[in-house]
Amino acid sequence: MENLAYYNGRVTGINQMQIPANDRGFYFGDGIYEVALVHHHNIFALQEHLDRFFMSAEKVRIALPFSQEELVQILMEQVKKIDSPSQFLYWQVTRATAPRQHVFPEDDVLPNLYITIKPDGRKDFKQEYDLTTTEDIRGLFCDVKTLNLLPNILAAQKAAEGGFQETVFIRDGYVTEAAHSNVSIVKDGIFLTHPADEKILHGIERGHLIRYCRELGVPVQEKVFTLEDLKAAEEIIISSTSGACMRAVKLEGQPVGGKNLALVEKLREKYLEDLEEQTDR
Amino acid sequence: MENLAYYNGRVTGINQMQIPANDRGFYFGDGIYEVALVHHHNIFALQEHLDRFFMSAEKVRIALPFSQEELVQILMEQVKKIDSPSQFLYWQVTRATAPRQHVFPEDDVLPNLYITIKPDGRKDFKQEYDLTTTEDIRGLFCDVKTLNLLPNILAAQKAAEGGFQETVFIRDGYVTEAAHSNVSIVKDGIFLTHPADEKILHGIERGHLIRYCRELGVPVQEKVFTLEDLKAAEEIIISSTSGACMRAVKLEGQPVGGKNLALVEKLREKYLEDLEEQTDR
Repeated sequence: MENLAYYNGRVTGINQMQIPANDRGFYFGDGIYEVALVHHHNIFALQEHLDRFFMSAEKVRIALPFSQEELVQILMEQVKKIDSPSQFLYWQVTRATAPRQHVFPEDDVLPNLYITIKPDGRKDFKQEYDLTTTEDIRGLFCDVKTLNLLPNILAAQKAAEGGFQETVFIRDGYVTEAAHSNVSIVKDGIFLTHPADEKILHGIERGHLIRYCRELGVPVQEKVFTLEDLKAAEEIIISSTSGACMRAVKLEGQPVGGKNLALVEKLREKYLEDLEEQTDR
Repeated sequence: MENLAYYNGRVTGINQMQIPANDRGFYFGDGIYEVALVHHHNIFALQEHLDRFFMSAEKVRIALPFSQEELVQILMEQVKKIDSPSQFLYWQVTRATAPRQHVFPEDDVLPNLYITIKPDGRKDFKQEYDLTTTEDIRGLFCDVKTLNLLPNILAAQKAAEGGFQETVFIRDGYVTEAAHSNVSIVKDGIFLTHPADEKILHGIERGHLIRYCRELGVPVQEKVFTLEDLKAAEEIIISSTSGACMRAVKLEGQPVGGKNLALVEKLREKYLEDLEEQTDR
């Protein structure tokens, strides 16, 4: 198959899948999700995605009806159906299918598992970003990967309309993250990134970059930095599953960063090695 | 019919409706909604609900594919199909049906209109509330009635598990609103309620209570108040579409309010007169 959607055991093409309107995802955004890369028909950084997903479930109090092993089995069954060895794997769980009311339905109503897979999805590292900024008006649960994504959508759209590749969120004067990525900078030779608290998603690639820096002997600090720090940075690195180490070289058209390409390239090499090693089995 | 669901022109029972998984409501919570009461087969406070709905659409940049008049025509056609003259009317619009990506799809992809109607829905004024409190961790767009409701759901569930009827959100030491209602108090004979800013939903019934107070010569102040003010209030009034003027008499089991039932009863009389006058045509 070229792409697929899975919903509670049923499999169709992505554009064909139908679900009940009573799914609490549809009217409450009552669910959580993950996005992972598939390479050589294997899921990259699988354990980290599983751990974050089960943590998200716990935080929103969704009792997942499967173990990590059972979920992996379902995911891998779908991954194998797709022709392309490199895939963009999305999965979400919504709390239940039930008539609309805020409180949880009875315990015997099971969560819904929805999966989509399409080919590829990795961004070309050669693409360099021009960034814009926006006020971070989101709540204090950005560490939970929920389906409540309206502020992110609006920020991403505003960026796209301006010809920018990402928007950097600013909260109380500090850079938190971007509309669908983490933001890190290199300052005075130090890799600086927002602490993994409730104001940012604890990005898997952000975590990898920290590990790669440590392996390379580059000092890492997880602490807040300002828009001024961003502007003065040696490098600005934008990371997400689909673009693990993207380089921002402009901020609203003005040149920024671009002073330590050697480090960016070393991080990318580390990532590509990691991707191959973990998936080439 | 006893109840119905409507999705882009298709009508079924609420539990039978199927929708495309590609509806952006399902994976992004990318939509807005309204809840209104139907009495005598007419929609109460219709213009206010329409105005708020069109404002919500503007704030999340959904270009509604119908005028207010066209929406009313669709809603009223459905309302007439339901046997019960008193109904709970819910409608939502999601941005589009399209493969998942943050940025908006092309302009030729239309928003989806989903409606559900079921009988009744009004709470009995005799029910007195016991309240609990929770930290308000939501973002700064609570004035927009979006489908991003996870914090409200979690708060409502926590309240229900403790045997409470509502949770009062506290932000920076001030009472904002509740999980699915506005909170107002009577203090020193003044009706006190949070300003209509981005931290609360601008409840239609909150607006009505302000109007009823003015008609009764009760002074009104829209300003913030603390948990201590709530505890010391003459009366605590919880308002929403389904419970326009509910009285809270306990806070985590301890007696609160309950010192000006006469005013609460006058407000309820005003509401019931208003409800009859606006719908008995």
